[in-house]
Amino acid sequence: MPHLPAVPHLATALKGPLLQIEQKLLQHKAAIESWFRCQFRQTPAPFYASVDLRNAGFKLAPVDTNLFPAGFNNLHPDLRPLAITAVQHGIERFCPVTDGVLLIPENHTRNLYYLENLCTLAGLISDAGFSVRIGSLNPDIHQPTAIDLPSGRPLTLEPLLCEGDRVGVAGFFPCAVLLNNDLSAGIPAQLQGIEQVLLPPAELGWHTRTKSAHFGHYRDVAQEFAELIDCDPWFFDPLFRTCDGIDFKQGDGIDRLIDSCEQLLADIRVAYAAHQIEQEPYLIVKADAGTYGMGVMSIKDPQELAALNKKARKTMTSGKEGLSTEQVIIQEGVYTFEMIQEAVAEPVIYMIDHAVVGGFYRVHTGKTVTDNLNSPGMFFEPLAFSDACIQPDSRLNPDAAPNRFYAYGVVARLALVAAARELKGSQA
Amino acid sequence: MPHLPAVPHLATALKGPLLQIEQKLLQHKAAIESWFRCQFRQTPAPFYASVDLRNAGFKLAPVDTNLFPAGFNNLHPDLRPLAITAVQHGIERFCPVTDGVLLIPENHTRNLYYLENLCTLAGLISDAGFSVRIGSLNPDIHQPTAIDLPSGRPLTLEPLLCEGDRVGVAGFFPCAVLLNNDLSAGIPAQLQGIEQVLLPPAELGWHTRTKSAHFGHYRDVAQEFAELIDCDPWFFDPLFRTCDGIDFKQGDGIDRLIDSCEQLLADIRVAYAAHQIEQEPYLIVKADAGTYGMGVMSIKDPQELAALNKKARKTMTSGKEGLSTEQVIIQEGVYTFEMIQEAVAEPVIYMIDHAVVGGFYRVHTGKTVTDNLNSPGMFFEPLAFSDACIQPDSRLNPDAAPNRFYAYGVVARLALVAAARELKGSQA
Repeated sequence: MPHLPAVPHLATALKGPLLQIEQKLLQHKAAIESWFRCQFRQTPAPFYASVDLRNAGFKLAPVDTNLFPAGFNNLHPDLRPLAITAVQHGIERFCPVTDGVLLIPENHTRNLYYLENLCTLAGLISDAGFSVRIGSLNPDIHQPTAIDLPSGRPLTLEPLLCEGDRVGVAGFFPCAVLLNNDLSAGIPAQLQGIEQVLLPPAELGWHTRTKSAHFGHYRDVAQEFAELIDCDPWFFDPLFRTCDGIDFKQGDGIDRLIDSCEQLLADIRVAYAAHQIEQEPYLIVKADAGTYGMGVMSIKDPQELAALNKKARKTMTSGKEGLSTEQVIIQEGVYTFEMIQEAVAEPVIYMIDHAVVGGFYRVHTGKTVTDNLNSPGMFFEPLAFSDACIQPDSRLNPDAAPNRFYAYGVVARLALVAAARELKGSQA
Repeated sequence: MPHLPAVPHLATALKGPLLQIEQKLLQHKAAIESWFRCQFRQTPAPFYASVDLRNAGFKLAPVDTNLFPAGFNNLHPDLRPLAITAVQHGIERFCPVTDGVLLIPENHTRNLYYLENLCTLAGLISDAGFSVRIGSLNPDIHQPTAIDLPSGRPLTLEPLLCEGDRVGVAGFFPCAVLLNNDLSAGIPAQLQGIEQVLLPPAELGWHTRTKSAHFGHYRDVAQEFAELIDCDPWFFDPLFRTCDGIDFKQGDGIDRLIDSCEQLLADIRVAYAAHQIEQEPYLIVKADAGTYGMGVMSIKDPQELAALNKKARKTMTSGKEGLSTEQVIIQEGVYTFEMIQEAVAEPVIYMIDHAVVGGFYRVHTGKTVTDNLNSPGMFFEPLAFSDACIQPDSRLNPDAAPNRFYAYGVVARLALVAAARELKGSQA
């Protein structure tokens, strides 16, 4: 892992707008940070989040905000103390009296990447000064199960137990329960009505949460932020529409979907023309609820949807744990023009409490600039940032590494403000 | 600056007790962190502090706790993000609404080491997302004065202005005022009765604060902590006595001082015998109020005090800004057996809010194991820790680097708890 990853090369002549944005962020740093403080005071951030960004040079936008982030093992070890203190503040904020944290993971017991993440996350909580144990919802975990990790670190999964209104593992029923399971299949019976503090609340699981609700809030946030720094919100905000009643298997609603796609493409063309962008617009079509990049299509011509073959239709309906994809979100595709050694790179930013705690580039050699880089069977090389995204340097060029990373951190926190509003809405 | 400073070699066969302490700290980590959380909830920490530690192998103890720390420029750049987030939390805790911080420095305008510290501190506050300007009490600063720093970084001192019940600099009178001036000469007229939040409160300045009050609180804290981890508090706690009515110049009270020294030496001999320490005990005699290591003597035989020549007596009375040294503190001398390449090393730990944010070794080639390393005209090489002192690893030996650094961080925070009690007492 290189100590100071170079900021990727932007393979476009169109980085003028980004330079302007980065310059505005530098100029307004104090006002921006004050604004974030105010936002998170009014609307507390969820416990943690990761945000996938895309950088087209003319647009820097979030395309996915995950409230049950995995991948903590991809963060740079130098930034670990930052994550540890953020965990301290986050837990203290939501559950000031607890001395222990029960961690509830995803059910996959064979995905070693995921389990390395889980081990790193548990280690952060432990170093933050809390007892931590892992209670699995997986019915195959009948007893404490030690996992052999490639890193050689110890990890034990224990069966989740219920005792009165609490969940835990044998002899350990702490006040705080941290979900690292996105609850795609709904709120499990064990977690319903528990008296413990559940982080984040189960209502933010993918069984109820929709991408469109997030990006609806994000649109407002981007608008308010753009007024603060006096620029066009489109530079941060991907356009989107939703379309419901879609059954890919039966072919129901596909015509309406094609219409919606045409309308969104028309809107994007207007924006591209207004900003003198010569690239061809494209769309991302995906399930409005769900995760894991399943059921994601990148299309340039909506008529492609009419011509979907059986296999492609099946893919669109195979949401995780059998979610149907009745409502879809159609999102403005954001090119990624960040390249590392000929490979496409996408920044992923991690936040705990309201602090940016690091990130990495998802570097993918087999994908093009419009492909979704978080797709089934994807293989990427994580390239950890050693930059904490909070130390811009106004004496350097606007696109110098510290300033580029600061821009990532700002846009990721805009998505976090949107998530905070979702959280507030879910508890109303 | 090496990336991972090696933990210094302990030049003593007597590191058995330290190993036991480090082992206990590892075993009780979760309980210790829970205890600190509880302490700082009950008694909030002052905004910042640095603590000088001494490590004798058989004893690891604080010898000085500075509530107006300089030397931030000596911290490792990799840990900067940690300090930045701690500044955010500290300012938010004491003054949630402020967007700006006025920094009031010491008056020295020619001490470039100090001014580099000031520049680093201002940079941390700026990166934490606050406007920051420096208002000097120095009457020689009549107008904004740019300083040429060896590091090439920009630094401007401005004259401190008063406007109604507020202090500031031209056009900048923020809610939060951060003192980096220890107020040895008393609370300046400009700061009396201001309505702004003063961090730390002026009552903690050296005009009123005494080392004995600090170490009195520390004694209680060490006792409580020792009960928590079931060990002898003497391992962390330097014995001390005070003696007042001393006038070194006139020779008044010297006999009583010698008596007190003899009594303290007798107490130390008892402790040394109980712990099978074969070293010869020694004492540190210094002004009970004051800073900068002025008026500090290291003595093995109290009769040395009777034989002080005129020059030595003058040194003892030359406290900073003419403070008289009427009350002195006599402290158990703690050997430092940490050596880096034949040179004596003393760890200095920095804390902001209640977080350890780094530290450095004060490495001094011309001093012996009993000398005070923070003495007039001292020259030391700072060797920055890249370890944040919060990531012990129970799979390593108790004295492996992460565990030694964790021990430093724990003992420094014990001193911070004592300082928090001083703060609470000063506001009662």
